Amino acid sequence: MFPLPEVPLPSAVQLDRARAELLRDLGSRVLTGDDEVESYRRDDSGIDGRLPCAVVLVESAQDLITALTVAERTGVPITPRAGGSGRTGGAVPVAGGIVLATQGYDDLVDFDRQEGRVVVQPGMNLEALHRLVEAEGWFYPPDPNSAALCCLGGNVAENAAGPRAFKYGPTRNYVLGVDAYLPGGQRFFAGRRTRKGVTGYDVLGLLVGSEGTLAAFGEIVLSLVPKPESVMTLLGLFRTSADSARAVQEVVSQRLLPRCLEFLDGTTLDVMRQSGVALRPDAGSLLIVEIDGDAASCEAQAQRVGEALDAAGALEVSVATSEDARKRLWQSRKQMSHAVRTRSRHKISEDVVVPRARLLELLEEVRIIGETERVETLCYGHAGDGNLHVNFLWNDADDEPRVTSGVRRLFESTVRLGGTLSGEHGIGILKAPYLPLEQSQELIELQRRLKAAFDPRGLLNPGKVLPPGGHGPC
Amino acid sequence: MFPLPEVPLPSAVQLDRARAELLRDLGSRVLTGDDEVESYRRDDSGIDGRLPCAVVLVESAQDLITALTVAERTGVPITPRAGGSGRTGGAVPVAGGIVLATQGYDDLVDFDRQEGRVVVQPGMNLEALHRLVEAEGWFYPPDPNSAALCCLGGNVAENAAGPRAFKYGPTRNYVLGVDAYLPGGQRFFAGRRTRKGVTGYDVLGLLVGSEGTLAAFGEIVLSLVPKPESVMTLLGLFRTSADSARAVQEVVSQRLLPRCLEFLDGTTLDVMRQSGVALRPDAGSLLIVEIDGDAASCEAQAQRVGEALDAAGALEVSVATSEDARKRLWQSRKQMSHAVRTRSRHKISEDVVVPRARLLELLEEVRIIGETERVETLCYGHAGDGNLHVNFLWNDADDEPRVTSGVRRLFESTVRLGGTLSGEHGIGILKAPYLPLEQSQELIELQRRLKAAFDPRGLLNPGKVLPPGGHGPC
Repeated sequence: MFPLPEVPLPSAVQLDRARAELLRDLGSRVLTGDDEVESYRRDDSGIDGRLPCAVVLVESAQDLITALTVAERTGVPITPRAGGSGRTGGAVPVAGGIVLATQGYDDLVDFDRQEGRVVVQPGMNLEALHRLVEAEGWFYPPDPNSAALCCLGGNVAENAAGPRAFKYGPTRNYVLGVDAYLPGGQRFFAGRRTRKGVTGYDVLGLLVGSEGTLAAFGEIVLSLVPKPESVMTLLGLFRTSADSARAVQEVVSQRLLPRCLEFLDGTTLDVMRQSGVALRPDAGSLLIVEIDGDAASCEAQAQRVGEALDAAGALEVSVATSEDARKRLWQSRKQMSHAVRTRSRHKISEDVVVPRARLLELLEEVRIIGETERVETLCYGHAGDGNLHVNFLWNDADDEPRVTSGVRRLFESTVRLGGTLSGEHGIGILKAPYLPLEQSQELIELQRRLKAAFDPRGLLNPGKVLPPGGHGPC
Repeated sequence: MFPLPEVPLPSAVQLDRARAELLRDLGSRVLTGDDEVESYRRDDSGIDGRLPCAVVLVESAQDLITALTVAERTGVPITPRAGGSGRTGGAVPVAGGIVLATQGYDDLVDFDRQEGRVVVQPGMNLEALHRLVEAEGWFYPPDPNSAALCCLGGNVAENAAGPRAFKYGPTRNYVLGVDAYLPGGQRFFAGRRTRKGVTGYDVLGLLVGSEGTLAAFGEIVLSLVPKPESVMTLLGLFRTSADSARAVQEVVSQRLLPRCLEFLDGTTLDVMRQSGVALRPDAGSLLIVEIDGDAASCEAQAQRVGEALDAAGALEVSVATSEDARKRLWQSRKQMSHAVRTRSRHKISEDVVVPRARLLELLEEVRIIGETERVETLCYGHAGDGNLHVNFLWNDADDEPRVTSGVRRLFESTVRLGGTLSGEHGIGILKAPYLPLEQSQELIELQRRLKAAFDPRGLLNPGKVLPPGGHGPC
């Protein structure tokens, strides 16, 4: 459905040379067989890139340098990859070439328990980090839905957030520093090892969320916060999405700051019912509200959140206090993305954001788009942040033009409501053509110049973030 | 004491032309008399720049565009300025030229009480914003010591933080978007109007803390958090700085997250005693710990903080719960920076940061530096963040080489302890020569290329952030 963006392709001679140099310098850490490299063509976006000429199984900083040096010397594009769980094609090798697979470069390098700071290699799994630091009273807040699969390198490269961002902010707020590597193998450390710092330009902030297009990541320094003493999760069932949206506003107007404020629409509830979750039939929408803090504060917050949900007309409100009950609840929320896949042959999940108070308007726009384009839609997401996952579901290839039209209309509506194209999935391949809907030509041209400051030849992860065309790299 | 960095100077013909064009296009909003522009030569760093050829009293976005267009057309440098309260010379016109004075461009443009978001013009005073949003149940956490004087434009340009950053993070975390203007007058909006967003590169993050060298700021979109229900402030007196430092670690190891964790050393207490504050004679160090949250949580936290201070050997711990008592306490802390000035003819205040657990080592290094260089030193700062304001005090010009040597040794020690040169003052003119102590040549060269992507001719606020020399602008 999604044609790959047009990018310059390396010649067969260049590819052969790159492959030969990598095999010579890195030996068995290089995969070159068609069967071996096949799975590295794609990520969780479902987009197929070109077959890589070589996949480097990175195990050290020196491997990064070697691979990036070969890329520069041979002029062959190189695409960093961590867990491959991205949703917009960030790890897809659009031009083929070299894939820099960092999933095996995954050690915890340092854990400073006094400062609350870890140094990790980019392949370290996010859920593994969560477990490890929580066991010692610390907390790493970012928790994208893909936590079980994704790696810190990708988490940082996409600035992926997840539900807890409502209270704790995005990944960017927890990244203190990163070892960055440019094509040619030049290395620099961007950021710092302290909690605070304003020395020089915020190059680190620019690298976070750059989707592997500005530098490849080596070791990453992350800041932790104290693990909250208590957590409580409330579930509110509502008749309609309008009631849910009102409840969200009610919670916020009470100056409560839960760590999560998750919304699910009626179609999503149907999917949950089909996958065996018991939900009363008159519920057409659901909110999950999770609060944390010390025990006294949690009790007080839970009381007030409950009252806010009641005031907005909740059909019923229940509280999960035990760890087991909380886990079961989140399990069904997290599995939903996969459950939705079984509902139809094809699915695309967008992650637009609007100001919180416009959420209901956006839901209404989605309903109209679905009706007029005759495509099933289903919405859930991080309502506190106004971040909605809008899913389009279809079965036949014939439907695709209408889905494409629906996606464009969704982005147009989002921008008209004062919103942004992506809250956490990134731009990647899928959204790059739509960037001009939101950003001015001046800003896009500036971003091309920034890209060129890191990667003047456009070798690093080409075809991502910036729309095709224009001058310079990308 | 501080020679201005060498920058290209505009010719008299260029200056005359710029002045004439500004007068023609902006009339009475342009100051050109030597007396009128004199005070715009300097900011709170005490550095005197060159006399500007013209000061533009900006009142609108159009004034920004006009002034930046004249700068580009005539090739005359232009320096943005907000409150002029910066400590490293960010607003000092090193090359003379045009000063873009935004202090009168100071309206609140929008206050979205549902979303918790304001749009302000860059000249709006920070304390005025605090009052305004707190009156309606919202909270803007950044609170640099200069809050009564500084403006949001400077606050954002310096990414200045203040004590509350320990819990709430730096200014960067609260800036959602900014209208940016380049030399030539091109305008773009960077960032977003939503709480969350990862669309394109984080150009906004790069602008925050860029000290007026990448773009001039127009309207700024800021995110607010709910105003905490309760605040309590504890004061702990200790025999030594070592005891204080131990108390800081004790608080953190209890997984408490006060909003402020402020440290004052013995010499600082002497200054306070001299300015009339009654402090027991055996106190050689002091901690201010401020907690916030709902009432129940504050009580519980205060109890635990008190125990932690006791465990570290506090001589006495007192609690200020009333708003009046809290204000008095902070008043003496805030006035201290000025009280210190009366102690000697000259003062320089650095704001280095080290990992929190290295704070005591840094204090010891400062003691040794002061002794061997025979310069009085005095330290206070944001201990939770490891951010120490190290003050050098002296009276005679003869002392200056030893002060300069002391400052360099302080930066060397900071970097050796894993720290960074600036936590909140920025680099400006004063610290630019020291940047290579902390950052690699690769990173500095990359920052020169980033600067060139915004300002290829180096007209915007020259002589700041990056060290003199090298290729390209700056």
